[in-house]
Amino acid sequence: MKHEQIEEGLARLKALEAAGLFGSDFLLTWDKSEQAIRAVLLTAELLQALREAGISCRLFDSGLAVSIFRDKSTRTRFSFLSAANLLGLAAQDLDETKSQIAHGETVRETANMLSFLTEIIGIRDDMYLGTGHAYMLEVAEAVREGHRQGVLPQLPALINLQCDLDHPTQSLADLMHLARHFGGLDKLRGKRLAMSWAYSPSYGKPLSVPQGVIALMTRFGLQVRLAHPEGYSLVPEIERLAAENARASGGSFSRAGSMAEAFEGADAVYPKSWAPYAAMQRRTELLRAGDARGLQELEKEALEHNRRHESWECDEALMARTRGALYLHCLPADISGVSCKRGEVAASVFERFRLATYREAGYKPYVIAAMMLLAKVERPAEALGALLRRGERRQRL
Amino acid sequence: MKHEQIEEGLARLKALEAAGLFGSDFLLTWDKSEQAIRAVLLTAELLQALREAGISCRLFDSGLAVSIFRDKSTRTRFSFLSAANLLGLAAQDLDETKSQIAHGETVRETANMLSFLTEIIGIRDDMYLGTGHAYMLEVAEAVREGHRQGVLPQLPALINLQCDLDHPTQSLADLMHLARHFGGLDKLRGKRLAMSWAYSPSYGKPLSVPQGVIALMTRFGLQVRLAHPEGYSLVPEIERLAAENARASGGSFSRAGSMAEAFEGADAVYPKSWAPYAAMQRRTELLRAGDARGLQELEKEALEHNRRHESWECDEALMARTRGALYLHCLPADISGVSCKRGEVAASVFERFRLATYREAGYKPYVIAAMMLLAKVERPAEALGALLRRGERRQRL
Amino acid sequence: MKHEQIEEGLARLKALEAAGLFGSDFLLTWDKSEQAIRAVLLTAELLQALREAGISCRLFDSGLAVSIFRDKSTRTRFSFLSAANLLGLAAQDLDETKSQIAHGETVRETANMLSFLTEIIGIRDDMYLGTGHAYMLEVAEAVREGHRQGVLPQLPALINLQCDLDHPTQSLADLMHLARHFGGLDKLRGKRLAMSWAYSPSYGKPLSVPQGVIALMTRFGLQVRLAHPEGYSLVPEIERLAAENARASGGSFSRAGSMAEAFEGADAVYPKSWAPYAAMQRRTELLRAGDARGLQELEKEALEHNRRHESWECDEALMARTRGALYLHCLPADISGVSCKRGEVAASVFERFRLATYREAGYKPYVIAAMMLLAKVERPAEALGALLRRGERRQRL
Repeated sequence: MKHEQIEEGLARLKALEAAGLFGSDFLLTWDKSEQAIRAVLLTAELLQALREAGISCRLFDSGLAVSIFRDKSTRTRFSFLSAANLLGLAAQDLDETKSQIAHGETVRETANMLSFLTEIIGIRDDMYLGTGHAYMLEVAEAVREGHRQGVLPQLPALINLQCDLDHPTQSLADLMHLARHFGGLDKLRGKRLAMSWAYSPSYGKPLSVPQGVIALMTRFGLQVRLAHPEGYSLVPEIERLAAENARASGGSFSRAGSMAEAFEGADAVYPKSWAPYAAMQRRTELLRAGDARGLQELEKEALEHNRRHESWECDEALMARTRGALYLHCLPADISGVSCKRGEVAASVFERFRLATYREAGYKPYVIAAMMLLAKVERPAEALGALLRRGERRQRL
Repeated sequence: MKHEQIEEGLARLKALEAAGLFGSDFLLTWDKSEQAIRAVLLTAELLQALREAGISCRLFDSGLAVSIFRDKSTRTRFSFLSAANLLGLAAQDLDETKSQIAHGETVRETANMLSFLTEIIGIRDDMYLGTGHAYMLEVAEAVREGHRQGVLPQLPALINLQCDLDHPTQSLADLMHLARHFGGLDKLRGKRLAMSWAYSPSYGKPLSVPQGVIALMTRFGLQVRLAHPEGYSLVPEIERLAAENARASGGSFSRAGSMAEAFEGADAVYPKSWAPYAAMQRRTELLRAGDARGLQELEKEALEHNRRHESWECDEALMARTRGALYLHCLPADISGVSCKRGEVAASVFERFRLATYREAGYKPYVIAAMMLLAKVERPAEALGALLRRGERRQRL
Repeated sequence: MKHEQIEEGLARLKALEAAGLFGSDFLLTWDKSEQAIRAVLLTAELLQALREAGISCRLFDSGLAVSIFRDKSTRTRFSFLSAANLLGLAAQDLDETKSQIAHGETVRETANMLSFLTEIIGIRDDMYLGTGHAYMLEVAEAVREGHRQGVLPQLPALINLQCDLDHPTQSLADLMHLARHFGGLDKLRGKRLAMSWAYSPSYGKPLSVPQGVIALMTRFGLQVRLAHPEGYSLVPEIERLAAENARASGGSFSRAGSMAEAFEGADAVYPKSWAPYAAMQRRTELLRAGDARGLQELEKEALEHNRRHESWECDEALMARTRGALYLHCLPADISGVSCKRGEVAASVFERFRLATYREAGYKPYVIAAMMLLAKVERPAEALGALLRRGERRQRL
């Protein structure tokens, strides 16, 4: 992006400032207006442009960005801490893997104890249906009470780094990738996107990626087709939401009976494994009951169930049915013959799009940084403009 | 705090600068003069005021603050790293949970290896009587030798984040809380504080909180009453110290036979569980001997011993005996019917003071930052004044 | 160092700038020209001088320095993060201890996912012959491809924090220590250095320290003698390299049959344990085969093998054969009667050189910072000169 393009972007951002992101959490894309979504993408682009021009994006001279990962994560963890670092916040991780179902006073208290000098709290809690989003709401309410009651001098903004319902930092990075590929957000209208289940030899992958994708992409006029074997449906409310979004945006949301059908004439494909819905529900119950044997049996069953659908693999024959589609993935992909015997995608297909998926992932730190900035800075266009005009180098000499 | 109040606070701080904190460790409150204690509290208040006015408190552009936690900690860890971040230091944790009783050359060497660019070392080592404070002295001597001998260009200052004897960052946060509640440090004279043992279904809680409280509060003219069941006495030297302090300050230190007696007419109450003294001594010996079965038996015994005192719970009836006392706790509290079946405090009492205890905890990052600043900056009033006059914003725009 | 000395050092650094370090990785000292080695040492000295003069060395206002430790490390971890902090980079550790032999797509992908805003990647992977250096090359190629293909806006530079072949940050710290001790790099010509195996009750210590030492010191005209019991030879190519280096530099490289023979008339001695070469090879195979029992048996054998050479201890009698030699060690040393019953060095010898070995270790953060700086800054003399002239204090007041 050239200097004039940045200036022009800042002018567009100014028009989006009233999108209601300042002072608020980012938990679900469907709670946010289209203006707000556009503001995040534009801010992400501007931050990337400043960064690549070597201009300091350090808006904070101190302050913490705390991340709470309730399951292991390397990629999201590094995206989050890169974003924090870009803005001048110190990232600090709280390992909570063991206290999976802490709630009530423990959550209220811990949330405040972590937040005395904290600007941002990022949470990933995606393993159990009905719990991740609920946990985030609990933390959000706890810090809001703390701020109201004089415990916290500033209100930390929450960012959903993946819950049971949505994965907004991922779906927005995906949307940014699509926009770059097709020449802009407004060029996505009418484009066909296949969101398809794919086979994986592992079990229990969260539903939030496909849910996030169908809920977000239908808002920008895309024609989204969802395909999965029987038993792998998504949370019903979110499928309904996707249909409504499509109606409102002039796009469409439909179902296909197979990956092949979904891929027919597609401009972009997103073949990705997720767990059977019913299994995810039983899993939450078994976990709550502390039933270790039940969990083992469930895993065995679910893997057997998966195995019946080994043919759901994105291979060259399927890609040939598309209109030269762009392959999307949130990484890591299960690549047949590479990371597993049989997986989500054929090696030759993945290899062709490998670097493209890396670039797709590369938008995530900027998307997260944009969410942070828009939550904490009231007039972002002015703030970014000041960075630009000051022109301080990120690296001296 | 308004601008003029800050300026007035800086003037008061100037008068306290000769308190001997520059270049020295903060291990025990009773090693420090009253001037020094007042300097820490005042600096903590000033840092909080600057922070809440949005003014950068970044005194360092680089440098490490290393923390060594010899048992798990979330709250103190975050307080320490928040304090470091506020001043511009990068916090780095050394996980030493496994090497519990390392000493001698290992300590000397490790202490120096961690300190080449380190300004502050915070240590928490509170589990074994007779070891925590001794370990801190060993580390302090090691870095002092390293500095003297040209190994370390700067002398890192140690901060006790809880040892077997004292918990100065906690007791100073408690004191700051009391001072705010009663309208100033000098309004504490004559106020009655009940430090009472309370029942908890867990075992082995350190003695350093009650010890830190009785040793510190008696210096400010409070009338401190200590109550605990038989077998739960504190380290005798510290009880003696509390009595001496009270004599010198015009306060008092006495014992009560029950929580009820201690609470009678109290202005503030601190009901909190700790381990039986004799059990803590045996535990240290068993640990040194590597006697795992002995440790298990001890735990069983100690829990049984605890159970005999289930009635030591801070409930509404007991609170009614006080003069509308402020409830204090270092958190997390064992709340009856919330975090355990039966615990230190009734749910309704805790709930009334819940946010007050959060605020109490919220002073800790500033107390720690004040200790850091006073140890590293020779003329703190001038340094803080320069921050104020420079007026650089912590967050741009 | 005085101001004029720093200026004079900067002038010398200017003459070394074309040494090819800018934009390149630092994996093996023998891949680097003598100019490059001199540039690293000089830059390390200048950084130390600026730091000790209290001048900010913060060249970056943001950016990550990622470390990947494939086995546990405290000292190197702290050296790396101290170096990063000195220059203004945020250090972030990736715990990869469990994924010991990940490779292929996993490495390519992870390397890029960690690097979106990363300036430096430090890797320690020293446990298995034939794997550590290979892994580093794989990571280097992955990020180079990512940078070429627009995934990464900047190319992260790799720094070898110890591999199976070399330990350049250690050997350069050792060289800096020798240069300080003997009055300059050029005073090392003709000095006799004994690199000798020594007994340790532990097993599996990497070969990279002695390899790094013999390969580096022979380039500066030292007379290096290598001694070890039968079965403890080093990687043959590196021994050949040491011989060639010695021929080219006018030094020498020879073997001695015992520690005593190696120490005869030595100016510096480096008695240090390492694993039997054949055992290290078998270990790698057993690990690849996942043969846990084989690994246990190998350890037992190797420890027995070691025990036959308990007499290889650096004691006062051996030190008496030297010309008042300087004792070197990379720490931690196995000290007889201190850290183990019988070890690499007698307690009285170690105690005499204890603080000297701490100082030796103290060069490491500056060596690492120098490698970082020279990889990322095209005109380092100018950059350091600008820091000097700006004169910003590392600590305010």
